[in-house]
Amino acid sequence: MLEALFRPRSVAVIGASAKELSIGNRIIKNLIDFGYTGAIYPINPKADVIRGVKAYPSIFDVPGDIDLAHMVIAGKFVPNAVEDCGKKGIKAIIINSAGFTEIGPEGAALQKDFLERAKRYGIRILGPNCQGIINTDPTLKAYCNFTFTKPEPGFISIVAQSGGVGELIHQGFSQMGIGTRIYASNGNASDVSITEILEYFGSDEGTRVIALYVESLSNPKAFMDVARKVAAKKTILAMKAGRTAEGAKASSSHTGGLAKTDIAIELIFEKLGILTFQDEGELCQAAAAFAVQPIPAGNRVGIITNTGGPAVIATDVLVDAGMQIPTLSEKAVCELKGKLFAEAAFSNPVDVLATADAGHFKAAMDVMMAEDQIDSLYINFVTPFFVDTEKVAHQIAEASKLRKKPIVCNLMTDPRQWMETVNILKSGGVPCYGFPGTAARALAALSRFSALKSRNIGEVKRFTDVDSACVSAILKKASDAGCGLLSAGEVYPILNAYRIPCATWKIADTVAEAAAAADAVGYPVVIKADAASVIHKSDVGGVAINIQTREAVQEAASAMSAKIAASDLKFLVQQYRPYGREVIVGAKAESGLGHLIMFGLGGIYVEVLKDVSFKISPITEVEACEMITSLKTAALLQGVRGEAGIDKPAMIEVILRLSQLVTDFPQIQEMDLNPVMAFSDSIIAVDARIAL
Amino acid sequence: MLEALFRPRSVAVIGASAKELSIGNRIIKNLIDFGYTGAIYPINPKADVIRGVKAYPSIFDVPGDIDLAHMVIAGKFVPNAVEDCGKKGIKAIIINSAGFTEIGPEGAALQKDFLERAKRYGIRILGPNCQGIINTDPTLKAYCNFTFTKPEPGFISIVAQSGGVGELIHQGFSQMGIGTRIYASNGNASDVSITEILEYFGSDEGTRVIALYVESLSNPKAFMDVARKVAAKKTILAMKAGRTAEGAKASSSHTGGLAKTDIAIELIFEKLGILTFQDEGELCQAAAAFAVQPIPAGNRVGIITNTGGPAVIATDVLVDAGMQIPTLSEKAVCELKGKLFAEAAFSNPVDVLATADAGHFKAAMDVMMAEDQIDSLYINFVTPFFVDTEKVAHQIAEASKLRKKPIVCNLMTDPRQWMETVNILKSGGVPCYGFPGTAARALAALSRFSALKSRNIGEVKRFTDVDSACVSAILKKASDAGCGLLSAGEVYPILNAYRIPCATWKIADTVAEAAAAADAVGYPVVIKADAASVIHKSDVGGVAINIQTREAVQEAASAMSAKIAASDLKFLVQQYRPYGREVIVGAKAESGLGHLIMFGLGGIYVEVLKDVSFKISPITEVEACEMITSLKTAALLQGVRGEAGIDKPAMIEVILRLSQLVTDFPQIQEMDLNPVMAFSDSIIAVDARIAL
Repeated sequence: MLEALFRPRSVAVIGASAKELSIGNRIIKNLIDFGYTGAIYPINPKADVIRGVKAYPSIFDVPGDIDLAHMVIAGKFVPNAVEDCGKKGIKAIIINSAGFTEIGPEGAALQKDFLERAKRYGIRILGPNCQGIINTDPTLKAYCNFTFTKPEPGFISIVAQSGGVGELIHQGFSQMGIGTRIYASNGNASDVSITEILEYFGSDEGTRVIALYVESLSNPKAFMDVARKVAAKKTILAMKAGRTAEGAKASSSHTGGLAKTDIAIELIFEKLGILTFQDEGELCQAAAAFAVQPIPAGNRVGIITNTGGPAVIATDVLVDAGMQIPTLSEKAVCELKGKLFAEAAFSNPVDVLATADAGHFKAAMDVMMAEDQIDSLYINFVTPFFVDTEKVAHQIAEASKLRKKPIVCNLMTDPRQWMETVNILKSGGVPCYGFPGTAARALAALSRFSALKSRNIGEVKRFTDVDSACVSAILKKASDAGCGLLSAGEVYPILNAYRIPCATWKIADTVAEAAAAADAVGYPVVIKADAASVIHKSDVGGVAINIQTREAVQEAASAMSAKIAASDLKFLVQQYRPYGREVIVGAKAESGLGHLIMFGLGGIYVEVLKDVSFKISPITEVEACEMITSLKTAALLQGVRGEAGIDKPAMIEVILRLSQLVTDFPQIQEMDLNPVMAFSDSIIAVDARIAL
Repeated sequence: MLEALFRPRSVAVIGASAKELSIGNRIIKNLIDFGYTGAIYPINPKADVIRGVKAYPSIFDVPGDIDLAHMVIAGKFVPNAVEDCGKKGIKAIIINSAGFTEIGPEGAALQKDFLERAKRYGIRILGPNCQGIINTDPTLKAYCNFTFTKPEPGFISIVAQSGGVGELIHQGFSQMGIGTRIYASNGNASDVSITEILEYFGSDEGTRVIALYVESLSNPKAFMDVARKVAAKKTILAMKAGRTAEGAKASSSHTGGLAKTDIAIELIFEKLGILTFQDEGELCQAAAAFAVQPIPAGNRVGIITNTGGPAVIATDVLVDAGMQIPTLSEKAVCELKGKLFAEAAFSNPVDVLATADAGHFKAAMDVMMAEDQIDSLYINFVTPFFVDTEKVAHQIAEASKLRKKPIVCNLMTDPRQWMETVNILKSGGVPCYGFPGTAARALAALSRFSALKSRNIGEVKRFTDVDSACVSAILKKASDAGCGLLSAGEVYPILNAYRIPCATWKIADTVAEAAAAADAVGYPVVIKADAASVIHKSDVGGVAINIQTREAVQEAASAMSAKIAASDLKFLVQQYRPYGREVIVGAKAESGLGHLIMFGLGGIYVEVLKDVSFKISPITEVEACEMITSLKTAALLQGVRGEAGIDKPAMIEVILRLSQLVTDFPQIQEMDLNPVMAFSDSIIAVDARIAL
């Protein structure tokens, strides 16, 4: 569907200019310089020829069909020009011009106008206020873009929600010698979306890896549907900026979006098997490995080096990144002893010594390739002048071509003096880096991706023992009454309906009823004031815990009545259940996405350590389990110092039931079970809050 | 003293060779190619000329004086050759040859032999098994080294405990266009040490910044004495590898040192004001900024960009690295509105837009330079073809030359097409990077260094109210008796002597005495079995807490007597002091250095979160305070949820008294106060252990 945009057979430039430093001239120059194989039609009412290409006064004067038009004209002329494109049968337009929504209501009106006309003719629009696209397919070579980086052909396609960051990745690839397949940035995104571009890359045969940059998602659900399918067949490396409050603020000022530090996007990536980076340099460096190397089976690295110190650094970085450096088998050590210099190091890292030649490197690589407990190879290769480094490079390239286990190389050389050695490695598909840390992190990214892909999060299962009709009725009544925060008399029946275990409770209207309720639930009890006007119960003396007797209940309830002047005051009388490990389970609606489900240890852990985990609803059992085990303080839940651990299956069930509840009832904006008391044999929510 | 090594007026190469791929040939080639200004004397019994330079059969045939000799001969010939050098009056030798301690006892004997001879003649030896040195001083140009990287002259000197890592940094500088002043790696370090090289760099006028790589320190005290002085006048950027257990293992196999993850070196760096890096790429990138930019007054950054997204990324990275992005003053915004395009962003980041020319950049930089709440500038500069980017570059270079506030630049360009723009920035001393994260981290390093240098840790103060004679006597007695772990009857008097507050205690020999002791200290009490054979008291039923009565004391002590069959069994009877916040204070002797002092929260915090802080003894009050406040869980000590905080001055005093105790008595190998109960009005150690 976006074929005309990404594979145009002919391109018109509306607003083509003879002025060298204008965009209308540059695009034509770029198309020519890059070797575009289609027809170029400069459109200019006055010029006959631009950059040596015949120009036409209008698109109607162009003899043949036009697939794609660039528009480099003032905003006010765009709507009519789009109309003309429709009449001419043009299928896609890249609007490079700015002056639309980003400048205010006047521009927004123009954007609305041209979009309506485009829709009428079935024209797809990229932009406005965008750079355009580049497709390096050797049969096409379409540089429909006014920027200056000339990519080599390759297998990685780039899509970025910011032209600047797109260009950054693009330049990064170019300077690292990594090829690009298709490049696109969509500016104001009036029509063609990041999601559609991603979908197109998914169907493009020449694209093996996709580099994706986003700051915010306008339609997360649609993105997820598409990205799930694309991620199933292609590797997607992604980065989201605006992680910090300050970054989000900078992003909102730049994209006009909402300023919020949005963790949902990274959770989406994780859920779909998209590999996330926090550093675009690291993304580019990893891309160089992804483009040419296989994905390892696991995280166990064999290190080969011909100089000591850099292997120590690599080891540190690999271990920090979660990789293992296994000991070599006796057989392997024995084999190495027969083939390397006597002074070599036969552990892992294997130090073949600076004097090692191609044969020594081959021996070390053969051993590592044969070792079952090794999944990938990190090679540190300094190029001494007294070694035939080209032969070594050939040997490494040969090992890489087997595609048995991925190889990365920290190449320590002067590329001006060792040009041929560098070329042999490059053309052999060996990703080379200039620092051990850089190479190590690229290898770790391959391994991280392997773990992400091999992880099966399973299916979302539904509990069928829930009473959704009951919840539906309660929520409808609350909503009709204009209630924001539900009362205890509404919250607890909802928990019961979804079988979320909570401390036995009763609602009492009067002091006398409270006493009776306490008798019924059994002592000791907790009494909580419940009234619409009381938001923070403890602050107004609305909570009394560990009440042991009927008399004490009456006393506490009377005291609350005296303190809290609310006509709708009721009392929640609950079993007092202390001594469990306090945890929190929560949910928060995310616009257009579902809910973020949150789990964490309560009390000081959440306050001081901010030790919480999130997933996007609806979640699976595997995800619920990951939420528990991924906490920094997870060991506390397993039991430390001889304490029993918590009832983990029951904890998982509570998380899943809460996930199902908010998924069934998206009108729930926020819900907290805080605290939940986790015991070794049961899980009991002792306080809860639901907001619509 | 190392003048002959680092500034040789003449160089002999003993073992000079006519074979192109030999080290004895390469050194001569390197000296010639690099333009060495002194005399070169190839020594070879057979050749007349090597690489066009007249060769001599022996050093005795050389007509003039020789400052420095390279030795590229087999190990067994080295001792005699060193003797000859002594006779000739040679002052320094670089032994490039390997075959000494690193190959075993035979090599070690050779090393001992040549060292003795060198000492007799006052010759200093670099190596053996090393690359050598490079001094780029334009008046000297000494490339006494067999590697291949040709550095540009500069202000940063490099010293590395690994030739490979030295070369890595050296290549990194070269590829980033950063100049080097002096480069040295000392191989087996038989004579000239890293410390001495550091001292030399400190006195070298051409060295402004020092890049230091170490894996382990053989004499930490000597290093500290020198590094303190050098760090006071020059910027030292350092990296230590072998941080992880696996990395330490790789390092030990490579250096022959002990395999231990050694945090002491990074603590030394911190104490001396040496800036530590964990990534050599980051070190190199930061060095590029340190070499040419001033140190900022603080951590507040002004961001200027001509493309949106990369500024968002930079903001994220800067904030993650502890920087602040302050709001601009009204005056500044007003001024910018008068000078930038209407569509520009006038907050921080300031987006001057892609169409911005030199005037717009100047306006933004002038405003940032004038803002009091901004300490440094991050500039994101993409080079659009429609802008005079050379003028922009000139403007940035002008701002940089003021040296008022440091500037770093993320330069988004194709250096092949924008060569002159790149050159203008480079020659203007503007450090340029290829990714926003890289530039942001370099700027953050400048700011981190600023904080490190402006921090005054104060002086170590001595408590004069301690009774060191008492401790001395106890320790002597224990040591004479061959005791490793001190008994309670020894430990608690030591605490008392140093006025480390602990729960009131008495030692009782019998059950009856225990009861009397309990009466004396007051109930409730804790009873602990004390016997040389009992290491883990709780494991053998040797601890009873919260004993309320005389009878219960007798019962508990009797039970211990029954369970523990030790003839030296005594009972420590102590006040029971629960309900405080549990903390740990400890000390551990570090060979050749002093003690590592440790502080952390006790119980689950140390077990699960490993949340502890370390400093090297003797520590100052500022350091003790930092130990407390640098914990991740420091908030718990300040009091959360309405709890009172701990008595911090008293806590600091306990840490300082323990530091003084182990400093006064270095024979204490390990000492723990665990737990210490921290209350809001007092600090009480309730258990303690001292090992000699």
